[in-house]
Amino acid sequence: MVKILSPSTYNGWFHFPVRAQPHNTDYGGVVWHGAYLSWMESARVECLQAAGISFADLVAEGIDLPVVNMYLRYHVAVKMGEAVDVMTRLAPLERLRLNWEYEIRTTGKLCVSAQVSLVAIDRAKGKVMRSMPPILEKALERIAIAQSKQPT
Amino acid sequence: MVKILSPSTYNGWFHFPVRAQPHNTDYGGVVWHGAYLSWMESARVECLQAAGISFADLVAEGIDLPVVNMYLRYHVAVKMGEAVDVMTRLAPLERLRLNWEYEIRTTGKLCVSAQVSLVAIDRAKGKVMRSMPPILEKALERIAIAQSKQPT
Amino acid sequence: MVKILSPSTYNGWFHFPVRAQPHNTDYGGVVWHGAYLSWMESARVECLQAAGISFADLVAEGIDLPVVNMYLRYHVAVKMGEAVDVMTRLAPLERLRLNWEYEIRTTGKLCVSAQVSLVAIDRAKGKVMRSMPPILEKALERIAIAQSKQPT
Amino acid sequence: MVKILSPSTYNGWFHFPVRAQPHNTDYGGVVWHGAYLSWMESARVECLQAAGISFADLVAEGIDLPVVNMYLRYHVAVKMGEAVDVMTRLAPLERLRLNWEYEIRTTGKLCVSAQVSLVAIDRAKGKVMRSMPPILEKALERIAIAQSKQPT
Repeated sequence: MVKILSPSTYNGWFHFPVRAQPHNTDYGGVVWHGAYLSWMESARVECLQAAGISFADLVAEGIDLPVVNMYLRYHVAVKMGEAVDVMTRLAPLERLRLNWEYEIRTTGKLCVSAQVSLVAIDRAKGKVMRSMPPILEKALERIAIAQSKQPT
Repeated sequence: MVKILSPSTYNGWFHFPVRAQPHNTDYGGVVWHGAYLSWMESARVECLQAAGISFADLVAEGIDLPVVNMYLRYHVAVKMGEAVDVMTRLAPLERLRLNWEYEIRTTGKLCVSAQVSLVAIDRAKGKVMRSMPPILEKALERIAIAQSKQPT
Repeated sequence: MVKILSPSTYNGWFHFPVRAQPHNTDYGGVVWHGAYLSWMESARVECLQAAGISFADLVAEGIDLPVVNMYLRYHVAVKMGEAVDVMTRLAPLERLRLNWEYEIRTTGKLCVSAQVSLVAIDRAKGKVMRSMPPILEKALERIAIAQSKQPT
Repeated sequence: MVKILSPSTYNGWFHFPVRAQPHNTDYGGVVWHGAYLSWMESARVECLQAAGISFADLVAEGIDLPVVNMYLRYHVAVKMGEAVDVMTRLAPLERLRLNWEYEIRTTGKLCVSAQVSLVAIDRAKGKVMRSMPPILEKALERIAIAQSKQPT
């Protein structure tokens, strides 16, 4: 499950493969529109993990990364059983906001595109952090480098 | 659960009350960002129901209303146990697109604001309908009238 | 949403009404087997609430009520749009174990029957409590009394 | 994601690895009791897939495999971020009932044990099938053989 940082995994995007399971579907036999959010969150967590950060450790250290806004466009519904590629990449930091871009694809077809913004929060104070915590900053740098590499 | 169309229920908005239950929460003790989508969908379905349309019947008649895009802003996290007012109203029709606006509140505090756009689909053809089906058009008119009334 | 303790609400069972919404369904157009667990949890929380206990307050006071085992029988699948009556009652205490019984019905038809057992945990110690906390004991007594009353 | 049938993958059990993600957790920072059902379903689907059956194809051919009963015991709560091994195996067929056994473990610790029973349904008739459909029978045999092999 855990991805390894390498140009081939990246090529600009971090890839998180899933299958559309029965519990992801609705009455239409396709993935329910809200179920994509779970996949997107998993892709974010695994991308950070690949960059050396455990999200659970981050939370244990008093830092949280709540979603502050989210935009999704649904192009084609993913059908039950399909193999899905949840692709994500981090846009350049906008002050202290992490902007994740998403493309969710099945064999080349773009099904969902999305943007999700997070901020770093000091859990004890319940406030947005004024500067990026060093542990997170380092991981974001690693992701930026990995994203910029081309596959050989 | 089913709401009755009246100025007091409306006053511009349809109100769908819920409580933040344990299964809606995440490790932070607050509602997980994706859980709001279920509440928003329930509010839409109940608003249509109050206007005389059963969503299940609509689907049985070959019409679907998939989400085509969605924008959410998270202002304040809802805490476990809080009583929540999921408010929704329909913006004026933009061609054949249903634009639902949302405000999710706890005792006067705005927690989430959102916009969700749906289109009517012919399930058999898998295509967007060129004209609004009469059954749906009638319900949308009823919602528009209810929304415009002021409480006495 | 909050139910009031009275013989008519009870008649042996606490009733929690829901509708089968699109997000509860799977590819079969019926409620996904795991979705019933959310309804069952909500019914438990609202039953305690009606007996004077806020589950969120209980957790804030350091007491948790995790599920230790669960048995479900699926008789008839609930269809999208159906009005559902999630009925629950507390079996007589078995030492310190809360055994909740469930019947999930649509217009008289039994769809799911279940039993769910919980124990009271001291959150700080992470251990099962040796005696029922007084706040919980009082609520359980109130539920027992309400369950034993007949509607007039 | 798709597992390959081999004694090492099996050794009696089919292994489906997951990570406990934020959306799986509740206010306690651990996996919500109902979230295990999604993992268990995924493990079943992937086990059948490894044996040559696509669950989505099965449904498309008019066969469904609904859950008829389920028993779960919760021993230790899985914490956010933990790597989890969802293990499943098929008990010998009991007439036409598929009985799946589960052990959900984190680094050697047994967290949840469960049994889930399914029956094959003719989707058009809405009735339990009187004999196992050949496509399913073949896959079940392959699983039985894989389960009986020892790793070399």
